[in-house]
Amino acid sequence: MSRVNLDKLPCYPQLKKLSVAPYDLTEKGAVNSTRIKETLCQTAGFDLLYGCQRVDEVVLDGLQTLADESGVVDQFARMKKGEVMNRIEGYECENRQVLHTSTRDVFSDTPRDPASSSQAITELAKLKIFLADLEDGKIVNKAGKPFTDMIQVGIGGSDLGPRALYHALAAFCVPGRRVHFISNVDPDDAAAVLQGLDLSQTLVNVVSKSGGTLETLTNEELVRQAYKEAGLDPLRHFVAVTGENSPMDNPAAYLRSFYMYDYIGGRFSATSMVGGVMLGFALGYESFRDILRGASEMDEAAEEKDIRKNIPLLMALLGVWNHNFLHCETVAVLPYSQALIRFTAHLQQCDMESNGKSINRQGESLAYQSGPIVWGEPGTNGQHAFYQLIHQGTTVIPVEFVGFRKSQYGQDILIKDTTSQEKLLANLLAQSLALATGQDDDNPNKKFPGNRPNSVLVGEQLTPKNMGSLLALYEAKIAFQGFLWNINSFDQEGVQLGKKLANQLLDHFTGLREDASYAADADDTGWAILQASGVVKRP
Amino acid sequence: MSRVNLDKLPCYPQLKKLSVAPYDLTEKGAVNSTRIKETLCQTAGFDLLYGCQRVDEVVLDGLQTLADESGVVDQFARMKKGEVMNRIEGYECENRQVLHTSTRDVFSDTPRDPASSSQAITELAKLKIFLADLEDGKIVNKAGKPFTDMIQVGIGGSDLGPRALYHALAAFCVPGRRVHFISNVDPDDAAAVLQGLDLSQTLVNVVSKSGGTLETLTNEELVRQAYKEAGLDPLRHFVAVTGENSPMDNPAAYLRSFYMYDYIGGRFSATSMVGGVMLGFALGYESFRDILRGASEMDEAAEEKDIRKNIPLLMALLGVWNHNFLHCETVAVLPYSQALIRFTAHLQQCDMESNGKSINRQGESLAYQSGPIVWGEPGTNGQHAFYQLIHQGTTVIPVEFVGFRKSQYGQDILIKDTTSQEKLLANLLAQSLALATGQDDDNPNKKFPGNRPNSVLVGEQLTPKNMGSLLALYEAKIAFQGFLWNINSFDQEGVQLGKKLANQLLDHFTGLREDASYAADADDTGWAILQASGVVKRP
Repeated sequence: MSRVNLDKLPCYPQLKKLSVAPYDLTEKGAVNSTRIKETLCQTAGFDLLYGCQRVDEVVLDGLQTLADESGVVDQFARMKKGEVMNRIEGYECENRQVLHTSTRDVFSDTPRDPASSSQAITELAKLKIFLADLEDGKIVNKAGKPFTDMIQVGIGGSDLGPRALYHALAAFCVPGRRVHFISNVDPDDAAAVLQGLDLSQTLVNVVSKSGGTLETLTNEELVRQAYKEAGLDPLRHFVAVTGENSPMDNPAAYLRSFYMYDYIGGRFSATSMVGGVMLGFALGYESFRDILRGASEMDEAAEEKDIRKNIPLLMALLGVWNHNFLHCETVAVLPYSQALIRFTAHLQQCDMESNGKSINRQGESLAYQSGPIVWGEPGTNGQHAFYQLIHQGTTVIPVEFVGFRKSQYGQDILIKDTTSQEKLLANLLAQSLALATGQDDDNPNKKFPGNRPNSVLVGEQLTPKNMGSLLALYEAKIAFQGFLWNINSFDQEGVQLGKKLANQLLDHFTGLREDASYAADADDTGWAILQASGVVKRP
Repeated sequence: MSRVNLDKLPCYPQLKKLSVAPYDLTEKGAVNSTRIKETLCQTAGFDLLYGCQRVDEVVLDGLQTLADESGVVDQFARMKKGEVMNRIEGYECENRQVLHTSTRDVFSDTPRDPASSSQAITELAKLKIFLADLEDGKIVNKAGKPFTDMIQVGIGGSDLGPRALYHALAAFCVPGRRVHFISNVDPDDAAAVLQGLDLSQTLVNVVSKSGGTLETLTNEELVRQAYKEAGLDPLRHFVAVTGENSPMDNPAAYLRSFYMYDYIGGRFSATSMVGGVMLGFALGYESFRDILRGASEMDEAAEEKDIRKNIPLLMALLGVWNHNFLHCETVAVLPYSQALIRFTAHLQQCDMESNGKSINRQGESLAYQSGPIVWGEPGTNGQHAFYQLIHQGTTVIPVEFVGFRKSQYGQDILIKDTTSQEKLLANLLAQSLALATGQDDDNPNKKFPGNRPNSVLVGEQLTPKNMGSLLALYEAKIAFQGFLWNINSFDQEGVQLGKKLANQLLDHFTGLREDASYAADADDTGWAILQASGVVKRP
């Protein structure tokens, strides 16, 4: 029954009917102790409290039927086994397997797709040797000193996921090692990073699957120039992560090269060498293995068919309930963990680039909403910022809270008889209840309408292993939702038109550079906008 | 005619009618050279290109009527003159003036509200002396060394605006000076910042208007403890920004104290001492004055009544057109400037906390949408992330692009005959056109529906002065929109319920700490959620 539109599934009319009067969280006793205890889902070390979602057992049964009828778990399993899931039937398309899960399916004797897991194991072995060589002083700079810093040059999937994980796990860094990131073609991005660094002790990790990403090649060249100006030989400093045989797969230009493959989408590549080289340098090889182990456990657990025992599946279904049945356009991901400061930015790519589509896997227009807008910032910071609108605005915003029982550093303080970590957790859980139940008051400005659906995802501590699980949890959730909407979550044709037009505009800059009297047709729109914006000053 | 609901204004039905068939940007020639040239608005050094919005001259005339009928410019002027705008008629409320504009109305002999401008000038004079004392070696650490670093401890308005401005202007820092931020009650936030610093040469700027913000007091105490453990006297290092006579206004605890006043909302406080002390330290006094100068010029220009000559007013009206008439729930702010990496996070607070309201200024429920969800990340990074959904998703997302003609550092490189700055600008303008015009194709996956409304705001360079103008531009836009929706943009009652419930939950932690056998009622919801989440482990 897979590859069928959401609104054509047998269970759809019944869910539609149920959504007219969803569970009312604001009724007296609606969110009570029994409900809270009974609406708990556990998967791979994480707990999901979903008692503050607008669902009852009947709706949950309906969502179970939806999962069963659409065969999402089966599709997920087939994806992991190497079926060509990145395609649109009957049209020219990428036509690829989707095997980011193989980058962590490296602990079993019977991996789901042996060929890709074997490639992952080969790259891991190369990484282990590289890191050991750094550790043992076999790879040093010209002066014989060890490398303390690394610059990751990449954009999109080669930046956001790795960067999110680095910030999340900075507490576990090898002492003295730091990583920096250059992504934007804005020349100030590179300038700001380079000015604070001792390049002589800095490695540069250039990451581009195609070996042809405009921003990355440009920034690589900017950084290479800085090395040359500093009298340093780039070949001693530059490593590459790229596709085998890409233009960047060139031993004459890089100290080492690591490979990724076309079956790994950029936004799903954090557990490949795209994240691996940098995270291995920062955290050590074993910590990177722990990330993979956590991700692998979640990938396994996500094959559970009972939605009440499978967090990524349940979150996918609750998301569809809120989005397609209760008509909420966005979802806020609000981690109560400052270390997850860039995790939402990563999810924006992973989710919105995957599921921001308007056609199904047969190339037909959708009659329903696909991927929501994903946004958020860490709590408690957000409480002092945009929570006003979430509580009392005219738009209902479903929330996915994330928190951990223990802090990372363990440096805490008792003030007014509670620790900071307790204050953090009390605020997290209080927000969940407040959004759900609301509050009545004679003063209309002190009224809270409630019925703001939310769930709370809780882990023990944000360790490398748990970070791996959390990453894989969201990757699986996103894949499940794509299957539910019957879309291809694995291509990104929507980025092409902007690229094409940018190149046309760049031709005008080039034209001007080569000929001061250059001018395009008076009715050339690109030329007109360049002039109107004042970036090209001539008439 | 002010203080009337949007949908009760005489022009509303006509605008409603016009919105049924808004300007179609995808029609051949709809976005042509003439239109681009003619849809340009200029204010205080910024240009707004709005040819890619779904408006024609008839709609613009309608929006001009809307501005006139609602008297928004007049209300803005009265706000600046000290009228009590922070109120709900007939109900208990904050009942305050709204005078953040006075913090920069310090250049004129005839300030709009002389009393508050005079207070701003007094604080500026104190700041000037403090910074000179640091410069001249009159304020040094115990060992006689100068201070190189500052930690800003604050949350919400005491963090997001100042932090956004610091990142935006880091290129202009006094050599050797750096600023760090601790905001979140998450103890890992403080731990991560403290571990990398030489406290002996670090100042701490504690910022809380009330002097009673939970997170800030907790973090201040954590930081004070670190100083004591390092054998340092906090009195040599700690300065305060707070309300006069607040619990933090205490010379026994702080080297210096700077004041802010109850007529300055936290989210509008970046140009008060809340931002001033830190930015003055980082950039120097004169650069902070430049920020104020830029903000002041925009505040002046925003009193222009012709919407075609007033960018903040025009942006406010275009926003209402997209939100209330074309029914777009969110707005993406996408700066093509890596330095503006935290500007959107600041706007999330400034906009969503101001306009995320459901009642009007008479305490009645609104029958229309108020503030939108504001989100975004810098381009070109975003192009490799969530732009897929903006181009081809099922939801239309209006976009406000921001860019600058010149980079900050001026360190650039020519690759394929164009500079990085040119590539950045070409991408910015290309995205604007691509979103507006779309593209047809036989392959449904290569189709772009277009009609994604957007505008492009262009400045010369992101300098302190232009940053001040940009900040004030958005502050004015937000105020105008609040007036249009007839809401009180200046309180934040929506943050109270969560605080109250968090305190109830904290009582359970305290109870447990004092008595190991402590337990709340079995039907206490807060206790139940603490247990279910596993943060309190006993039955």
